[in-house]
Amino acid sequence: MSNTHFQLDRQGRLLHFLTIEGLKRHHLIEILDTAESLRGVAERRVKKLPTLHGKTVVNLFFEASTRTRTTFELAAKRLSADVLTLNIATSSAVKGESLLDTLRNIEAMQCDMFVVRHEQSGAAEFIARHVKPHIAVLNAGDGRHAHPTQAMLDVFTIRRHKPAFEALQVAIVGDILHSRVARSLIHALGILGTPDIRVIAPRTLLPVDVEKLGVRVFDNPTIGLRGVDVIVMLRLQKERMAGALLPSEREFFQCYGLTEERLALAKPDAIVMHPGPINRGVEIDSRVADGPRSVILEQVTNGIAARMAIMSITLGNHARPTGEQI
Amino acid sequence: MSNTHFQLDRQGRLLHFLTIEGLKRHHLIEILDTAESLRGVAERRVKKLPTLHGKTVVNLFFEASTRTRTTFELAAKRLSADVLTLNIATSSAVKGESLLDTLRNIEAMQCDMFVVRHEQSGAAEFIARHVKPHIAVLNAGDGRHAHPTQAMLDVFTIRRHKPAFEALQVAIVGDILHSRVARSLIHALGILGTPDIRVIAPRTLLPVDVEKLGVRVFDNPTIGLRGVDVIVMLRLQKERMAGALLPSEREFFQCYGLTEERLALAKPDAIVMHPGPINRGVEIDSRVADGPRSVILEQVTNGIAARMAIMSITLGNHARPTGEQI
Amino acid sequence: MSNTHFQLDRQGRLLHFLTIEGLKRHHLIEILDTAESLRGVAERRVKKLPTLHGKTVVNLFFEASTRTRTTFELAAKRLSADVLTLNIATSSAVKGESLLDTLRNIEAMQCDMFVVRHEQSGAAEFIARHVKPHIAVLNAGDGRHAHPTQAMLDVFTIRRHKPAFEALQVAIVGDILHSRVARSLIHALGILGTPDIRVIAPRTLLPVDVEKLGVRVFDNPTIGLRGVDVIVMLRLQKERMAGALLPSEREFFQCYGLTEERLALAKPDAIVMHPGPINRGVEIDSRVADGPRSVILEQVTNGIAARMAIMSITLGNHARPTGEQI
Repeated sequence: MSNTHFQLDRQGRLLHFLTIEGLKRHHLIEILDTAESLRGVAERRVKKLPTLHGKTVVNLFFEASTRTRTTFELAAKRLSADVLTLNIATSSAVKGESLLDTLRNIEAMQCDMFVVRHEQSGAAEFIARHVKPHIAVLNAGDGRHAHPTQAMLDVFTIRRHKPAFEALQVAIVGDILHSRVARSLIHALGILGTPDIRVIAPRTLLPVDVEKLGVRVFDNPTIGLRGVDVIVMLRLQKERMAGALLPSEREFFQCYGLTEERLALAKPDAIVMHPGPINRGVEIDSRVADGPRSVILEQVTNGIAARMAIMSITLGNHARPTGEQI
Repeated sequence: MSNTHFQLDRQGRLLHFLTIEGLKRHHLIEILDTAESLRGVAERRVKKLPTLHGKTVVNLFFEASTRTRTTFELAAKRLSADVLTLNIATSSAVKGESLLDTLRNIEAMQCDMFVVRHEQSGAAEFIARHVKPHIAVLNAGDGRHAHPTQAMLDVFTIRRHKPAFEALQVAIVGDILHSRVARSLIHALGILGTPDIRVIAPRTLLPVDVEKLGVRVFDNPTIGLRGVDVIVMLRLQKERMAGALLPSEREFFQCYGLTEERLALAKPDAIVMHPGPINRGVEIDSRVADGPRSVILEQVTNGIAARMAIMSITLGNHARPTGEQI
Repeated sequence: MSNTHFQLDRQGRLLHFLTIEGLKRHHLIEILDTAESLRGVAERRVKKLPTLHGKTVVNLFFEASTRTRTTFELAAKRLSADVLTLNIATSSAVKGESLLDTLRNIEAMQCDMFVVRHEQSGAAEFIARHVKPHIAVLNAGDGRHAHPTQAMLDVFTIRRHKPAFEALQVAIVGDILHSRVARSLIHALGILGTPDIRVIAPRTLLPVDVEKLGVRVFDNPTIGLRGVDVIVMLRLQKERMAGALLPSEREFFQCYGLTEERLALAKPDAIVMHPGPINRGVEIDSRVADGPRSVILEQVTNGIAARMAIMSITLGNHARPTGEQI
């Protein structure tokens, strides 16, 4: 994977955060440890650190996402950065400017970080390859490819409840095929040494070569959920599905939706996760989503700490003399 | 009114600001006195106080309002808060998320205050009942129900010109039926001891039980305006009117519009108010709106001070140990 | 020109920045020198100065422009101002409020500076004439009239490469007729003593009285570009052209587009400028736009410094006792 090395400098430090694939365990641990120390910031009366004071963070959102954009905006502001949000679809596109010209112009405004969300796989890496070396690029979701900050907040949430990844059984349930969340999470769990990662989905919602990711495949949740520590329910990405891969939402819920009965198959202290926004009654029953084992809202809180950590680390690595950079 | 007590803690201090109804005189005086001291901030070269530094204020606007949103945003920024504006109609609603799930997610981002504008009466209280105890909710207008920060800036403006509420004659003219401004103002004036509150409107624009609010009803402005100290003209809420309650704008102006002739019926030093935006030639003649007795633009200035005061007070009351909270 | 003097105080200092026309050389030099000292700010690790801390800058954009709005927003934030962006077309216009009432309301919120973009010539001056004396108004482009901050960033960029304006030959190529950029730049170059300003365009894209601006007119770029130090290509303002003044984009490129061949006619160290966004293959060939003599992206960087300078100077002049003001 070219991008594996591309997001690192010669010393192997993170310059961008584009994909989990190819990162080392120490990269993930550094993020998790930094997130842990930053998580306390949001509980203090003054929820701000001066880390990015005088830096400019630009949200480049080619795909709408209030939730993700908001958490990045809050993360940047709590690190004292100035934040600029550009909805590209509705701005310079009007005047027929190409993506590269738009990028060149924004970087000429001496911004320090681009947070990129795009419906095409590879968009964030494309941008990282074309920006000036002092700019850090964070992938906030690109097509079906990756959503690495989501994966980091997920493993951060898991670690706060179940610190020993090397003893963990994790089930990921639902639309694996269209889920950049699932892809990134599987990579992160693997790097952290999780021995048992299961994906539970109908064949039509699985990528062809899913086993190559190092997961065990189940199409029956009654078997797949047995004894797991963590259940990650995926959102049914209705807006990304072309054609009729599914009979109906109701049928999906009957076959795969997480109910209290199915949850009972997992370990008694299992946690239930979901990247949000949830479709109640489609992939998850409300009693489970709002129940005592759900950590879905903790994920949102942790998302800010994880993003603050990734912002601090990547921009910190850019602060060295530029001659050192690749 | 359940909400009367709901917005207070056990010591009777303001945790939210949802409605004027049921508040005590000391609550209003505290806001007015704080607003008075904050009003000077905007006249200083550095218009900022560190009061809300490190706090996150979220504008939740389910109903468009540039003016009100802007004054809340400025008030928060002048208190050094970080401000997030979410236009709910155009964001998570796209993905079919329920209001409660949206709220849960925003509060999980560890925000401190929600400023809520909604076209449905009771929306702000509903939200206040469902957010975590550390979050303060301010009602920035809910349906026909209440607009309590507008009422506070109105009585703040009145007090700066006519400090003795217990000797005041106030006339509120126009579409009382659809006006949350009128409802909240009548409550505030009553609590502050105003002995003579008059509403002047055609019967079709009056609520059925309007006298129960403690007001005197006039349908003839020539009689109703006589000798008053304060005239509050209401905006003809065309966008809220269903059906033909009125013959025409022109006819309304002829019968109720504030002209210099009608203004002459009031006390010589009477002040003229309007919550804005004004419909020139519909509820008010331009010569009056722009004339020497108009304090309409002072209301805008005072609105920022009043909102800064309410933000400071409610968040200050939340800053106690959480164990103390209801 | 009434506006010539209108933007100055009695001591001849800039209170607003509406047009280049009628300014003195020392006004421009003060802006250029200030921009030069501010340019370094963006290269520091902490890209912020406290100059406008506690000030409120309002972007009043009646015409969409992500690029210009963004540079003003960044300039204001790097000077520590609070920034409010109002897209007027979509906000209070909804409720039918007049422009003057909107202005009165925003100024009542005790803002310090209005940055105005409007499709009508004279709009910024109109606003400057009607706001309270403590408010500085910057013209961010009004119709075909002026774009003075663009002109200042252009001459700032020229001076960084060719400091001696009194020895300069400058060619401005393209749609002069619809270009507020060209008008303002011609004024600025003239004030700075540029002896040879050329406009190169088909007659249909030239104002009737263009020679009165003190320029030499060429319709043939092969002659007009000969020996120049600076080439300023204008954007083909397709959205501003009514009727068929041009045969086709392709024909325009063949006749006037800046190619490497045409660039070779200029001095060997000539610089190539463009206000952006560029139409590749219409007014400029990509090899030139991205080539070693292009300073197009430097213009973007310099635009922030120039705007920071203009903001600092105009607000600084407002900070005197108000009694001194006109």
